[in-house]
Amino acid sequence: MTALNRVVVLAGGIGGARLAGGLQEHLGARLKVIVNVGDDLERHGLYLCPDHDTLMYTLAGIENTEAGWGLEEETWSVAAQLEVYGEETWFRLGDRDMAAHIVRTARLKEGQRLTEIARALQLALGVEAKILPMTDDIVRTELRTEEDGWLEFQEYYVRLRSEPTVLETRFVGIEGSRPTPEVNVALAEADAIVLGPSNPFVSIGPILDVPGLREAIDWAKARGVPIVAVTPIVGGHAIKGPADRMLASLGHDVSAAGVARLYRGLVTGFVLDNVDAALEPSIAELGMATLVTDTIMGDRAGRARLAGDVLGFMETLQPRREEAGR
Amino acid sequence: MTALNRVVVLAGGIGGARLAGGLQEHLGARLKVIVNVGDDLERHGLYLCPDHDTLMYTLAGIENTEAGWGLEEETWSVAAQLEVYGEETWFRLGDRDMAAHIVRTARLKEGQRLTEIARALQLALGVEAKILPMTDDIVRTELRTEEDGWLEFQEYYVRLRSEPTVLETRFVGIEGSRPTPEVNVALAEADAIVLGPSNPFVSIGPILDVPGLREAIDWAKARGVPIVAVTPIVGGHAIKGPADRMLASLGHDVSAAGVARLYRGLVTGFVLDNVDAALEPSIAELGMATLVTDTIMGDRAGRARLAGDVLGFMETLQPRREEAGR
Repeated sequence: MTALNRVVVLAGGIGGARLAGGLQEHLGARLKVIVNVGDDLERHGLYLCPDHDTLMYTLAGIENTEAGWGLEEETWSVAAQLEVYGEETWFRLGDRDMAAHIVRTARLKEGQRLTEIARALQLALGVEAKILPMTDDIVRTELRTEEDGWLEFQEYYVRLRSEPTVLETRFVGIEGSRPTPEVNVALAEADAIVLGPSNPFVSIGPILDVPGLREAIDWAKARGVPIVAVTPIVGGHAIKGPADRMLASLGHDVSAAGVARLYRGLVTGFVLDNVDAALEPSIAELGMATLVTDTIMGDRAGRARLAGDVLGFMETLQPRREEAGR
Repeated sequence: MTALNRVVVLAGGIGGARLAGGLQEHLGARLKVIVNVGDDLERHGLYLCPDHDTLMYTLAGIENTEAGWGLEEETWSVAAQLEVYGEETWFRLGDRDMAAHIVRTARLKEGQRLTEIARALQLALGVEAKILPMTDDIVRTELRTEEDGWLEFQEYYVRLRSEPTVLETRFVGIEGSRPTPEVNVALAEADAIVLGPSNPFVSIGPILDVPGLREAIDWAKARGVPIVAVTPIVGGHAIKGPADRMLASLGHDVSAAGVARLYRGLVTGFVLDNVDAALEPSIAELGMATLVTDTIMGDRAGRARLAGDVLGFMETLQPRREEAGR
């Protein structure tokens, strides 16, 4: 049992979802996840939240572990019939998964907020933690690529399988967006904040760029709350996704140290993998406490183990609170 | 091969769909069906056209013959998951069927007309005939019942299994609706017009009440076009659905003659079943030519046979055209 009471994780897709799953094992309902919505999109007139749903299915324990997205025991009848009707189905949607998009779209049309809709879906699936969209406003990640110019995120990520070279990112709508009340409360009450092992550019980046959100993290830090990032890069490679190639094409070191430098001034601690232990001094030089551990999360036990390591690390970074007798 | 070149059928659900299927065997693309949209509804934020879809699936030869609605070889994953999310699923939607509703809803949102969306779906399924919604405007059938007051049609028909006693019908939005250009062309070009063996109150009724539509049929009649109704009542009972009980509760004879009287002044011919041959004189007295035949359509061959009978009957009702040398 960790002494940390309220933990907030910033997360994108699968890496962040796995760490959140591990943290949920320790924290249950005391965990809140702030999730990127920059990957959201409309397909077939339905409103899709891929990062949220990956988190939701993972925290409900019903994710498709083989595919890395979607639901276990999925069927594909709707998509097959959509193809008959001439719909482009490169964004593959399973039948059970489709229900979430249908419900979300219907309730948005009724005027409900994305956050409350998401919460109702999570509760229906028995998710203990709260998964909070970073904003109820529409933000869309776009990538300028060498080969195809500006692309919507999912066009790049799914349709083109992350093959184009990314030269620039932008988050359309971010200036006019604001954190939800739930996000503000989560950050204001947090005893620890974790930046999950998600892509720093297109998963964590949009969350941090919601106006006011980075400031809320800075305020937490000012009151002694540990802000810890977990590396998405191990041995120079992303566990999943294009973070490694994005680091390279955007001019950064393709390493845990390269990621740490992106978070300089924001985080107080950094978790890197055993295989990258040699990078530890250069990360410590950035003014971050470090934890070197096994960051690979295979099964559920592996997720819980890493989460336990991260929680233990964060407890050591709470001097003021411990002095206050907690 | 019939000498009739362009035949138009007015139809609601399953009875009209079966006759249309039979007519399509004879006429192929020369058949146009004007379909009731008063039964349309929104479920889970999706736009459903039950009568259109029953016709579409039947004319595509992929209807679920056992259920009398929906598609053959259907799966039910989406509906099961919608239930998990707390959605009411009394209006049962299969997975393959769901695709039509998703596409229709998306394309309506894009600004396409219901008629063009429907046509694209029909073509994708290989339907030869053209199925034309009676209007692109929204019309909603409501029923005043003894037990539950005013009900939306599908609440009465599906949720309450047609059990309440119907005292009155209304078609909300009908005054402001108008026939589509496609419907106007179909009626203006028709060589024969058939009122299918559908419920006269809630299937044929809304079609006839679209402002201008009954007049278009009258103009066709004035130029010698036969207007023929096929009875939905055989031996005092509806083949399917609540037409018999509606006839009774709305104060009409529960018989083919009762239906014929509803169509007096509109139709020039009436097709009744062999078992009701004794009613033939009373129907002839209404000023209608009559055909007494087997109106029960079991399999595909039965549909084609009845359709052939109806076509042959209508050819005998075309005196002026035959005099003109056709």
